[in-house]
Amino acid sequence: MSSRSHPAVYPLDIEVTEGAADGAENGGLPDDRVRMKDVQGMPGTTSGLALRLIQFAFAAVSVAVMATTSDFPSVTAFRYLVAALSLQCLWSLSLAILDIYALLVKRCLRNPRVVSFFTIGDGTTSTLTFAAACASAGITVLISNDFNNCRENHCTRFQTSTAMAFVTWFAVLPSFFLNFWFMASR
Amino acid sequence: MSSRSHPAVYPLDIEVTEGAADGAENGGLPDDRVRMKDVQGMPGTTSGLALRLIQFAFAAVSVAVMATTSDFPSVTAFRYLVAALSLQCLWSLSLAILDIYALLVKRCLRNPRVVSFFTIGDGTTSTLTFAAACASAGITVLISNDFNNCRENHCTRFQTSTAMAFVTWFAVLPSFFLNFWFMASR
Repeated sequence: MSSRSHPAVYPLDIEVTEGAADGAENGGLPDDRVRMKDVQGMPGTTSGLALRLIQFAFAAVSVAVMATTSDFPSVTAFRYLVAALSLQCLWSLSLAILDIYALLVKRCLRNPRVVSFFTIGDGTTSTLTFAAACASAGITVLISNDFNNCRENHCTRFQTSTAMAFVTWFAVLPSFFLNFWFMASR
Repeated sequence: MSSRSHPAVYPLDIEVTEGAADGAENGGLPDDRVRMKDVQGMPGTTSGLALRLIQFAFAAVSVAVMATTSDFPSVTAFRYLVAALSLQCLWSLSLAILDIYALLVKRCLRNPRVVSFFTIGDGTTSTLTFAAACASAGITVLISNDFNNCRENHCTRFQTSTAMAFVTWFAVLPSFFLNFWFMASR
C-alpha cells in the first residue's frame, strides 16, 4: 500500500517529517529509513555524491597525466592503468549522475538490490584501480630507483599518475565499505 | 550468570546440544550461537582452519620460489613481495594455530572484539599481499613481454612466485569478507 495511491494514510493534523515520508514512499518502516538517512556517504546523499565526484576527478587526472607521456603504450602496466582508471572514471561519473538525480527528485537509493549492485561494481572497479596503481608503482620505482633512468623517462608524470590512481582507490574504499556494511546489516 | 558456576541452569532431563552449550559458555544467547555455528570459514571452524593453512602454504611457496632467484634483491617490487608474503605467512600461521587451539578445546572465537581484530588484520595483510602481487606482476610482464628479456632473467620463477601471491590473496578474501560480514550483521 503506497502513500501515493492513499495519501490520507497520514492523519492530516500530524506533520510528516521528511524521513518518514521517504520511508513510506519506499514501502519500508519510517523509523528504519530515518536511521539509514543518517549514514552519510551512502548512494543518494550529498557526501555520497561528493565521494563520487572526487573519485571521478582523480581518476580523470590520472588518465590525463599518463596519456600525455609519449611512451606509456610501450609498458603493459601503464596501458592497463589507463584502461582501469578510464573504467573507474565512467563508473564514478555514472553513479554521480544517479546521485544527482536521486537528490533532485528526493528518491531513496538504499534499496537492497540496488545497493548490492553498487557494492559489486565498487568492489570490482576498486580492485582493478588498486591493481593498476600497484603495477604502475612497481614499474615507476623500478625505473627511478633501481635503474636510475629518469633522464630518458617521464618519471614525474608516471609518479603523479600512479599517486592519483592510489588517491582514487582511497576515495572508492568508503563507498564500497559503506554499501557492503549496509548489505550485511539490513 | 555462567554455566560453570551454575551447572543446574539446564534442567537435567533436557539434552544440551553442543551449540547451546557453546553459547552459554560465552555468555551469549544459545540460539544466536547456533546460527553462527553454521557459518563455515569463520575463525574456530574446520574450514576456517583449512583456509588459513592454504594461505600459509601458498604464501610460503611464493616466498620460497622468489628467494631462490639470485637477482630478486635488485628489484624493489620483488623485495617488497618477499616482505609482504612473509608477513602474510606469519599472520596465517598464527591464526591457524589459534584455530587449532579453538577446535581442540571447543572454544568459540566469534566474539565481536576478536572478530574485529581478525578483520583488521586480514584486511591489512590481504591489501599488502595484493599490492605485492600486482607490483611483481607489472615487473614480470615488463621483463617477459615488453623487454623480451627472459634469457637473462628467471622469468618462470618470477611468474610462479607472482601467481602464488595472487592465489594467497584469493584465499585471504573469504576470511576477510566472512569476518567483516559477521561484524556488520551482529
